[in-house]
Amino acid sequence: MPKKDLANDEKTLDRLTHLGKKLLRQLNDEDSENLTFETQVRSKSNVEYDEEDGRLSLGDSYSSRKFLNISHARKFMQTTLVASKTKELVEGGRTASIREIYYQLKHSVPGLDENTFENQDESNNVVVDIETSTGAIREDLHLFAEPKGTLFGPVVINDSGDSIDCMNMGTSGLSIPSIVDHYEFEECNADFILVVETAAMVNRLVEEDFHEEHNAIILGTGGQPARGARRLINIMHNRLDLPVYVFTDGDPYGYYIYSVLKSGSMSLAFQSDRLATPDARLIGMTMEDIEEYGLEHVTEGLKGKSKDNGGPTKDYKRIHDVMDYEWMQNDQWQNQLQLMLDKGVRVEQQALAANSLEFVANEYLPEKIENEEFMN
Amino acid sequence: MPKKDLANDEKTLDRLTHLGKKLLRQLNDEDSENLTFETQVRSKSNVEYDEEDGRLSLGDSYSSRKFLNISHARKFMQTTLVASKTKELVEGGRTASIREIYYQLKHSVPGLDENTFENQDESNNVVVDIETSTGAIREDLHLFAEPKGTLFGPVVINDSGDSIDCMNMGTSGLSIPSIVDHYEFEECNADFILVVETAAMVNRLVEEDFHEEHNAIILGTGGQPARGARRLINIMHNRLDLPVYVFTDGDPYGYYIYSVLKSGSMSLAFQSDRLATPDARLIGMTMEDIEEYGLEHVTEGLKGKSKDNGGPTKDYKRIHDVMDYEWMQNDQWQNQLQLMLDKGVRVEQQALAANSLEFVANEYLPEKIENEEFMN
Repeated sequence: MPKKDLANDEKTLDRLTHLGKKLLRQLNDEDSENLTFETQVRSKSNVEYDEEDGRLSLGDSYSSRKFLNISHARKFMQTTLVASKTKELVEGGRTASIREIYYQLKHSVPGLDENTFENQDESNNVVVDIETSTGAIREDLHLFAEPKGTLFGPVVINDSGDSIDCMNMGTSGLSIPSIVDHYEFEECNADFILVVETAAMVNRLVEEDFHEEHNAIILGTGGQPARGARRLINIMHNRLDLPVYVFTDGDPYGYYIYSVLKSGSMSLAFQSDRLATPDARLIGMTMEDIEEYGLEHVTEGLKGKSKDNGGPTKDYKRIHDVMDYEWMQNDQWQNQLQLMLDKGVRVEQQALAANSLEFVANEYLPEKIENEEFMN
Repeated sequence: MPKKDLANDEKTLDRLTHLGKKLLRQLNDEDSENLTFETQVRSKSNVEYDEEDGRLSLGDSYSSRKFLNISHARKFMQTTLVASKTKELVEGGRTASIREIYYQLKHSVPGLDENTFENQDESNNVVVDIETSTGAIREDLHLFAEPKGTLFGPVVINDSGDSIDCMNMGTSGLSIPSIVDHYEFEECNADFILVVETAAMVNRLVEEDFHEEHNAIILGTGGQPARGARRLINIMHNRLDLPVYVFTDGDPYGYYIYSVLKSGSMSLAFQSDRLATPDARLIGMTMEDIEEYGLEHVTEGLKGKSKDNGGPTKDYKRIHDVMDYEWMQNDQWQNQLQLMLDKGVRVEQQALAANSLEFVANEYLPEKIENEEFMN
């Protein structure tokens, strides 16, 4: 059942062919000594935040790799090997894991006492090089990683010809694969998408029939969301025109997850338009929830040392990091993070069980949605 | 959609009630000073291998916890708290995560400057105490953990009233939850169950339509299988009468995974009859595969130091550990592990891609199955 998205595959093939032709032209030129592969710099210095878009993106710094430069030659060869192999995959309608690609291309170079690749980090890096330089992302190139995340709710997804009713998945759920670009939405009766950080909370909500009673798509990320889950949230938000509410632990890691879902991550800044969802809102847990819902006895102390105490380390350090992000510069977030520093505590989603198991599904979430009590 | 398995729930309630009544009888006795909770010792010294069954089990050592012993009192209290809470869950047809249980039961003890639980390790341990002493496992007690693993293939599973056709799951698959005891199999056209260690290999096989062409249930464990996946393999093997072939990397960790699936693990030895599948066979990767399929150039060196070299450490240590297991004492396994030591290499499932992407689905697995080339 090779995945087919012919229009997109054609675009990807154009991009790879364009790269190949550019190299070929240089080779045939008198200028062949300058055979060069160009890619965007992906370090922090070249990451920009577009306030209007609400997304991270890469700046204009490029680095070039010259075939005749002794320190570039090896990586140059690796780049053309991977580019050529991905073209083969797209043409054949096949996908491969980034690990398989490594194994397929690893061999000794004839006449030299050298291998094409020594470890998988080398080929992984080259994959991202090709992504940035061609504009075709890993999914376009038919490369994938581990699946991560589960989905439940009133949406019928067509995956490779199979029609999957996600409302009809018991307590198991759909496993979200690493590539979701081929998903088609045949039917949708959902009012919103609820992105949930922990699997335990997903299980709780499914057991309380939250997805059915509130027409909600529940998407569990199992911690930091994988590329597949981030892309799926982006696609569903855009194609199904649904609001996205993010439900994380009330701790610096949870808020970091929210920031990545909303604005993108630095290492994948060149893909924010596909992976980030700037309209996403945080529904909880917030520091205000602690008093509001009587959770004082089930908070936990922040880990690490505060600024005044030889720090900041661990939780305290991450809070300061998140506070410094250009894209977290609004009063609401600065106050929230300051409140966390002042209280010195974190509060997990599961802490709501201190009231009752059904409390989160019957009171906490419905109230927040009804009163539109979100963080931006 | 609370899960209902009334017959089993009743048995569990009987067991919990029996525990409660026993404690109550002691309290009402003149002998109330001896109020005692008994549970089996779960350390290595009390783990036995039953050669006939092919499974690990717990021996006859018991430890007792006395309420009036100052060093036991706290844990005694915790045990009754958790037992009582799980009874409430089963009666209410609800499940909870082991994290939720912790939050629900954590509170300060009236009149004392002390909390019922200080961290989740305390409540987790008590859960296993109750499992061993009552014979009702975590799943019976309606407690669950994270979901892990995916399933594809010609089987229709009824999960809580939803009928899920696992042949019709595209490239996504069914997400295997932590509790599967309520699964009912409405229909099955499978000839065997293929348990696959890595997600990348699952993806490869699904893409090659291996499940459809070979009537195979493909169950991906994503590394060391979780309790849900182990239980599901056990249930499907028994109820559907299907052979189980385990497909792991050819390395000590892969073989350890196989041994756990087959005979059980030491820490959960008291549940081997539910979690282990002694009839499971290893289909690969084996050390012989390396020559047989020309994979010499895609092996990797074992990590760590060998015995002769200041070791054994890392891979070498794990090989010796596995070789020493009572349940690995047969010539086939001893030779296999010795061969790995001699060669000093490991070989991953993905290495088969060095031949071609479809090789594993079209040649490797079908040949092994046809020739019944398995490790016992």
